[in-house]
Amino acid sequence: MASRKLLVDIHTHVYLPRYASLLRTRTSVPFIRSSTTRDGKSEERLLILDHEPSGGRPVGPQYWDREEKLKFMDRHGIDVSVVSTANPWLDFLSASQAQILASELNDDLEQYCSTSPDVPDVSIKRLYGFGLLPLVPDITTASLLHAVDQISNLPHLRGLIMGTRGIGKGLDDEALDPVWAAIEKAGLVVFIHPHYGVDGKSWGDKDNGHVLPLALGFPFETTIATTRLILSGVLDRFPLLRLLLAHSGGALPQLSSRLASCIDHDPVVASRLKHDARYYLGKLYLDAVAYGPEELGFVSDVIARSKKFETGTSVTGSLTRSLGSQQMLFGTDHPFFPPLYSTETWKSVVENLEAINEVQGWGQSDKEGVRGGNAITLFNLTK
Amino acid sequence: MASRKLLVDIHTHVYLPRYASLLRTRTSVPFIRSSTTRDGKSEERLLILDHEPSGGRPVGPQYWDREEKLKFMDRHGIDVSVVSTANPWLDFLSASQAQILASELNDDLEQYCSTSPDVPDVSIKRLYGFGLLPLVPDITTASLLHAVDQISNLPHLRGLIMGTRGIGKGLDDEALDPVWAAIEKAGLVVFIHPHYGVDGKSWGDKDNGHVLPLALGFPFETTIATTRLILSGVLDRFPLLRLLLAHSGGALPQLSSRLASCIDHDPVVASRLKHDARYYLGKLYLDAVAYGPEELGFVSDVIARSKKFETGTSVTGSLTRSLGSQQMLFGTDHPFFPPLYSTETWKSVVENLEAINEVQGWGQSDKEGVRGGNAITLFNLTK
Repeated sequence: MASRKLLVDIHTHVYLPRYASLLRTRTSVPFIRSSTTRDGKSEERLLILDHEPSGGRPVGPQYWDREEKLKFMDRHGIDVSVVSTANPWLDFLSASQAQILASELNDDLEQYCSTSPDVPDVSIKRLYGFGLLPLVPDITTASLLHAVDQISNLPHLRGLIMGTRGIGKGLDDEALDPVWAAIEKAGLVVFIHPHYGVDGKSWGDKDNGHVLPLALGFPFETTIATTRLILSGVLDRFPLLRLLLAHSGGALPQLSSRLASCIDHDPVVASRLKHDARYYLGKLYLDAVAYGPEELGFVSDVIARSKKFETGTSVTGSLTRSLGSQQMLFGTDHPFFPPLYSTETWKSVVENLEAINEVQGWGQSDKEGVRGGNAITLFNLTK
Repeated sequence: MASRKLLVDIHTHVYLPRYASLLRTRTSVPFIRSSTTRDGKSEERLLILDHEPSGGRPVGPQYWDREEKLKFMDRHGIDVSVVSTANPWLDFLSASQAQILASELNDDLEQYCSTSPDVPDVSIKRLYGFGLLPLVPDITTASLLHAVDQISNLPHLRGLIMGTRGIGKGLDDEALDPVWAAIEKAGLVVFIHPHYGVDGKSWGDKDNGHVLPLALGFPFETTIATTRLILSGVLDRFPLLRLLLAHSGGALPQLSSRLASCIDHDPVVASRLKHDARYYLGKLYLDAVAYGPEELGFVSDVIARSKKFETGTSVTGSLTRSLGSQQMLFGTDHPFFPPLYSTETWKSVVENLEAINEVQGWGQSDKEGVRGGNAITLFNLTK
């Protein structure tokens, strides 16, 4: 089947025009600011982080214009993108604003996808999407369930993206249980993505641009959120929930045996979970946005070995990383990480493609799976 | 040579009696508190973290008594331990107090080691040590250099342990350059160890005992400190500095290609360093305290591949993880992570030994190196 060879980007963002317009009306984070550069050109800069380094980053049509997304895809050979609103989503809005905007943006994204071209010779669109829930304090459960229902009825939205704050207390808040139940029942994929990092005091007082919050803060936040989900029993209570973690799960794979050991040695949690912590990593999907073949191979090892850690299992011995590759999916993080100097293809994209190609122990079909086949299965893109 | 087969524990802590006495006089973190358990027994509990979960942890002679350390070593077949004061070291003291106590504790630790038994049939002691510097705000550079000098003249101290705060501004503070220079010249190994983790707000409001700060906060802190060292150019300026990172470098190996990419894409730092960020991981020594064979194998991959990332190198292709194993060293984290229920051997130790034994791609001599041979070389324990 032709679809086995498609390149599918599942980590690619947009600020839809309606959202970008809102950011332009604001004067505090998150916002878009117009200014004039030294050579007299006008420029827009995006500020989304508290204490944003370097005065924010320059933004342009690649952040909101669908034609730019399609051009980027063409230039990199990407057949299909599963697009998500970029952080910080609706986190900064009141409950009533978030509820309205979630509904509008979900409809906008459906339109963005449904009117996109077909992949030549294959009866699928070039664009699919992750919807948004109005996950903010004071939102009602009914509103959240309504949004899940909306997304599940929009044919080109195949999941939803969320940050790590939930409705204010994090994703381990039991108030979210009805939401997890509804998402699980609807079969939507939940893309968990960072925004806040960790306390900026950790970064010290040197100017290192965006490096520390992006390279470390982002993956730390995803790691914390997922660990809290595991510890809260969400993955025990909703075993069919399909969670997709940004940036290959952050640091969770490398810290997973340490996590298991810390749980085993702490009287507060030692008897709480159904399985060893490492079991739960096998329940997850992870993007392949880690920029190196050793990282990707290791992540696939960690997914594969999870089978050994199911309580009561008789599985022992070596489980190949080929098995683990089936839960990993190519992504670009576009339009973030543009090259510093204009180039035909983006280094950030090329590096991730090369990394997939160079993983020791992945066969050709494993690599094709990570490049697109796994996404086609996970998001049911075959029709 | 017999020494190739020794088991050497390089991550093992003590609160020397003088230090434990100080903690007993205190009433705020860090301190040791006496209390009476429900069944009428008296108990001492150690509180070292701000907002310490679970009312601290029970402590006893294994934290300060040398005979307990030797018994633990015997029970686990550990021939030699390179012992370090546990966190938070001298961080909470004034400059004058820290200066005096560092000097006294360095002498105490020399005595602790020099009067320890010999390893049977081998002319080395069973105990060696990492000394302490009075790394606190307002300390003079002269005092720090004096402490480096003291340690380098105490024959059984072969390195020093430090936290991540430096003299208040972190390890990337250029005020530490003379200290790095002196340490490099003296050939002392610097054991970088976490204590503070990251902001406790990240952990949410559920009671998960010590799991989140220990499983995640500790490795995050080490990762941040080492990344800041790399970004500050310390590893470019002091290329012979031998840094040993706790807990297999935390999350740094898994995030190292992301770090390299973030540096490449940020105008503030893109041209700052001599090499790709991944090169510097090959300059480091990492303990093998990661509790899983996949983690250890991956860490050794990341060390091995670093050769490819030296600016101007012609090295390409596959570098085996066997090569990387030479910079990894067995550790136990004793007396932390005691088993919840009394057992002859400690699970935390057995897991780390089994992990070393099960790494795919490490030969017998690689494993012997990680278990002890590498430590014998690094700390020059052969005479």
